[in-house]
Amino acid sequence: MSELTLYLAPGTCAMAVRIALVEAGAPHQIKRLDLAAGEQRTPAYLAINPKGRVPALVTERGVLTETPALLLYVAQRFPDAGLAPLDDPFLLARMQEVHSFLASTVHVAHAHGRRGSRWADDEHAIAAMKARMPQNMRDGFAEIEHHYLAGPWVLGERFSLADIYLFVVASWLASDGVAIDEFPKVAAHARRMLARPAVQEALIL
Amino acid sequence: MSELTLYLAPGTCAMAVRIALVEAGAPHQIKRLDLAAGEQRTPAYLAINPKGRVPALVTERGVLTETPALLLYVAQRFPDAGLAPLDDPFLLARMQEVHSFLASTVHVAHAHGRRGSRWADDEHAIAAMKARMPQNMRDGFAEIEHHYLAGPWVLGERFSLADIYLFVVASWLASDGVAIDEFPKVAAHARRMLARPAVQEALIL
Repeated sequence: MSELTLYLAPGTCAMAVRIALVEAGAPHQIKRLDLAAGEQRTPAYLAINPKGRVPALVTERGVLTETPALLLYVAQRFPDAGLAPLDDPFLLARMQEVHSFLASTVHVAHAHGRRGSRWADDEHAIAAMKARMPQNMRDGFAEIEHHYLAGPWVLGERFSLADIYLFVVASWLASDGVAIDEFPKVAAHARRMLARPAVQEALIL
Repeated sequence: MSELTLYLAPGTCAMAVRIALVEAGAPHQIKRLDLAAGEQRTPAYLAINPKGRVPALVTERGVLTETPALLLYVAQRFPDAGLAPLDDPFLLARMQEVHSFLASTVHVAHAHGRRGSRWADDEHAIAAMKARMPQNMRDGFAEIEHHYLAGPWVLGERFSLADIYLFVVASWLASDGVAIDEFPKVAAHARRMLARPAVQEALIL
């Protein structure tokens, strides 16, 4: 099995893929991009991922992108790690539901605080998005707290990729101006995640 | 096997789940919500989907939401239909990559044209988002045209859920002020989709 190469940047959703690879015991190397320096827009990187974003995972069959896709890929490629309920369509759909909510609602809410220029050109509009962002993060995490965190893990007793992805997105709350302790179950979940050796290892880049 | 119930509204991404169910030959009933009348925010519906959105799929084990999750659920629950490359981790990840890009980038771009109030409070900002939206739809579809549509189907020779989801999102282009013919491969793909009997059947609500 050839080694996988993950392009990532600290503090981004690509860290979820990094944690999943370590949790799976998957042989891989990582390549850090300096987003502030614009390394995601160099011709060399755009040849790997034309979208100019992280994560990108180089496999022996080609490059894959998009966090929810990469997470399930890791689970399917390294099934012994048991990172996803691959043989239970309902539970797998619930896991994917959480991934989709994190990617399309919560991550998008977060991005409006820093990258509003994706969705409007003028500065006033960008400032208005930034002002609204903390409330949208609160709304998203209220949904997670009340509906998507059975406890101790997202799927209940079973640890899964959804825990990894939630942990990474929750780590953005502080810089978004929202105290994680507003959401006691989410905060307890983050502490539980940080106690895992694989998570600790994955965070050292 | 008990029947599935899909809550949907015409013109929304929930139509992708409807088409997938028909393509799979899955026994199901549909319930239409009138979004303009606010039926997605009635207490009865919020008890089904607290997010107040479509789609929601009622199964014998509980309610599932989020289009990418529901699509894979249909494929896994009705494997004989062959709607996803379930046993090929790379190809499944590519399919999921397309789903994730459609959900988190293209659908989000589209939503800024009509539902900017999700991301900012003031009218000037909402107008600025609406003005920028067609360009973001163009950028998203350029990515699809050049990188995500091998042809004749998204995954090449193999028809999959990604074709269904792309078809539904592409159907929004006209009302977003973008001519589908700007993207010849996407336009040909839409015609190919409309020639499928299951697609024709699914569109009659």
